[in-house]
Amino acid sequence: MQSEFLGIDIGGTNTRLGLVSSKGKIVSSGRLKTRMDAGPRALVEGIFLKAARMMGENQIIQVGAGIAGLIDHRKGVIRFSPNLASWRNVPLKDMLEQCFSVPVAVSNDVNAIAWGEYKYGGYGTENLFCFTLGTGVGGGIISDGALILGANYAAGEFGHTSFEGNAKCSCGITGCLEAYVGNDRLVRKARRRMNLASPLMKLTSGKEITPRLLARAAREGDEVALKVFAQAGRRIGKALGNVVQLLDPEVIVVNGGVSKAGDLILKPIRETLKRYTMPLEGRKLRVMRSKLGDKAGILGAATLAEVLL
Amino acid sequence: MQSEFLGIDIGGTNTRLGLVSSKGKIVSSGRLKTRMDAGPRALVEGIFLKAARMMGENQIIQVGAGIAGLIDHRKGVIRFSPNLASWRNVPLKDMLEQCFSVPVAVSNDVNAIAWGEYKYGGYGTENLFCFTLGTGVGGGIISDGALILGANYAAGEFGHTSFEGNAKCSCGITGCLEAYVGNDRLVRKARRRMNLASPLMKLTSGKEITPRLLARAAREGDEVALKVFAQAGRRIGKALGNVVQLLDPEVIVVNGGVSKAGDLILKPIRETLKRYTMPLEGRKLRVMRSKLGDKAGILGAATLAEVLL
Repeated sequence: MQSEFLGIDIGGTNTRLGLVSSKGKIVSSGRLKTRMDAGPRALVEGIFLKAARMMGENQIIQVGAGIAGLIDHRKGVIRFSPNLASWRNVPLKDMLEQCFSVPVAVSNDVNAIAWGEYKYGGYGTENLFCFTLGTGVGGGIISDGALILGANYAAGEFGHTSFEGNAKCSCGITGCLEAYVGNDRLVRKARRRMNLASPLMKLTSGKEITPRLLARAAREGDEVALKVFAQAGRRIGKALGNVVQLLDPEVIVVNGGVSKAGDLILKPIRETLKRYTMPLEGRKLRVMRSKLGDKAGILGAATLAEVLL
Repeated sequence: MQSEFLGIDIGGTNTRLGLVSSKGKIVSSGRLKTRMDAGPRALVEGIFLKAARMMGENQIIQVGAGIAGLIDHRKGVIRFSPNLASWRNVPLKDMLEQCFSVPVAVSNDVNAIAWGEYKYGGYGTENLFCFTLGTGVGGGIISDGALILGANYAAGEFGHTSFEGNAKCSCGITGCLEAYVGNDRLVRKARRRMNLASPLMKLTSGKEITPRLLARAAREGDEVALKVFAQAGRRIGKALGNVVQLLDPEVIVVNGGVSKAGDLILKPIRETLKRYTMPLEGRKLRVMRSKLGDKAGILGAATLAEVLL
C-alpha cells in the first residue's frame, strides 16, 4: 500500500483529478463534469467516488484543490468563482475534509499552477513568477520559496495590471493586460484583419479561429497571425517589466493554452521585457515556457497543503 | 548595562546612527559626514568611534545598515550605490563585523525603511508596501511578515515601474514613475508654470523652489503647486494599482520628503488607486503617511539581522 496525494483542478466545464506519488509523479488521472447547477455538494461527492476508484489499494493522505476566482486560502472557502458564478462562500475545504478525513488545502487555480511549477518544474530557483495565457491571464508568485497570497487572497493578478489604453476589462478596470491579450481578443483581432489569401483563412475554412489555429497560421508565415502574437507579446513584455522591477524573479514561467505558440509569443515578450528591466550586471532572469503544461495545476494542488496549512 | 541594537543610515552626504533599545526606542542618535573620497574604511572607523561614544556603559549586540543602491543582502556587500558611485563591491558587512564583533546586516535603504515601518509602525498588518517619495522613488515589500528581496537583490523598485510617456529615467528605462514624480521633476514643473501673482512666487522670493515650499504654496491655494501635486498623485496612484494587483498589501505606507505634503498628494493617490484596483467586497487596503518618518530607516536597520541573517 502506498501513500498518495490527490490534486484537483476544478474548471468551469471539467474537474480533473490526479493521484500524485511522494516523488511528484502523477500515477493516475481522472475527470468528471463540473455541473454548476447540481451544486457543490454533488461535485464533492463525485470527486470522492472518482478518487476512491482511482486509489485502489493505496491511501490518500493529503488533498488539494485549485479553482479560478477569489479563494479564502486560510479557511478554504470559495468566495467567488467566475466559472461557477452561483457558488458563493462555499466551504470547499470543510466539505472535502468530511469526505476524505485528511488535510485539505484550497487555492486559486493559478496559485496552484505556480506552486506546481516551483515544486516540480525543476527550474532551480526560489524566486519564480508564473503566468497563464488563455481565456484569461492569471499569475502566481513564489518568493524565497513561499507562495505570496496577499492580505485579501488576491495577490498575483497579473492580468489586471498595466493599465494602458481604453479597453474595458471584465473586472471593471480600464486598460488591463487581459483586455488586450486574452484569447477572445487575439481571435477577434485576427478575424478582423485576415484576408482571403492568408494561410489563416485556409486553415479555418469558415470555422472558428482558435489560438491553436492562429499559432499554426503564424508558423506558416501568415502575416496577420504573426502580427497578433507580436503585439500581444510586446504588451505582455511591458507588463512583465512591472513584475520584474517589483519582485525580481529569477525565472518567469509561461503556462496556459496560448503559451503553446512558443517563440511566436516568447520572443517579443523577451525583447520587450528587456527594454523595461533595469540593467544589472549579471542579472539572473529567464522567461521560459512551462515544462509541466497541464500537469502543473494537479501537481501544485496535490502539495498545496505544505504551504497553506 | 543594557543591550542595544545599532541602526545605521548611510546617505550620500550624512550617515546617521541610532542606538535602539530592545523595545524599539531610539535611545541615542548621532551623525557624521559620509565623505565618499575618504573611502569606506574611513567611514566604518568613523561609525565605530561615534557608536562607542554613544553607547556609554551599554553594549551593542547587533548592527544593521541601510544604503541606497544595489546591495547583496546575503553577503552584505555594496555592489553599487548611486550616492557613493566610486564604491564598488564594498564588503560592508565584513568590515563592520571586524570592528563591532557582533552580527551585522546590510541592506538597501528602502528595504530597511520598509522593515522599520513593519516592525515599529504599528499598522497591524503582515502585508505592507512602503514607498519613499523624494529625490528618487523607492519601494520595499513585506509579505506575510517577510521582506521580499528578489533573486538579484533588486525587488521593490517601485520608482522604476509603470512605463508611461517618453521621459527618460536615470536608470535607462523610458517612462518610469520616478522620471515623473521625483523631486527634481516636481520642482521643474512648478518653476515652468508659476506666475508672478502666485503664492509660490512670494514664498520663494527668487530663491530655489523646494518640495517643502511647494507644499506650503499649495496649502495657501497656489494653483500651480496644487496641480503639480495632483498630477504626481494620480501618476503614483496608477502605478500603485500594479502593486496592489500583484501583491495585495493591506497597508501602503508613504515615507520620504514629499510625503510631508500629506493629503495634497495622498488624496489624488487614493482616488486614482481606487480606479485601478479590482473591486473586492470588504477589501482591506489603506494608504497612509508614515508614522515613523525619518526614524524608520534607523529602526529597520537596527533589527534587519532578524530577517537577513
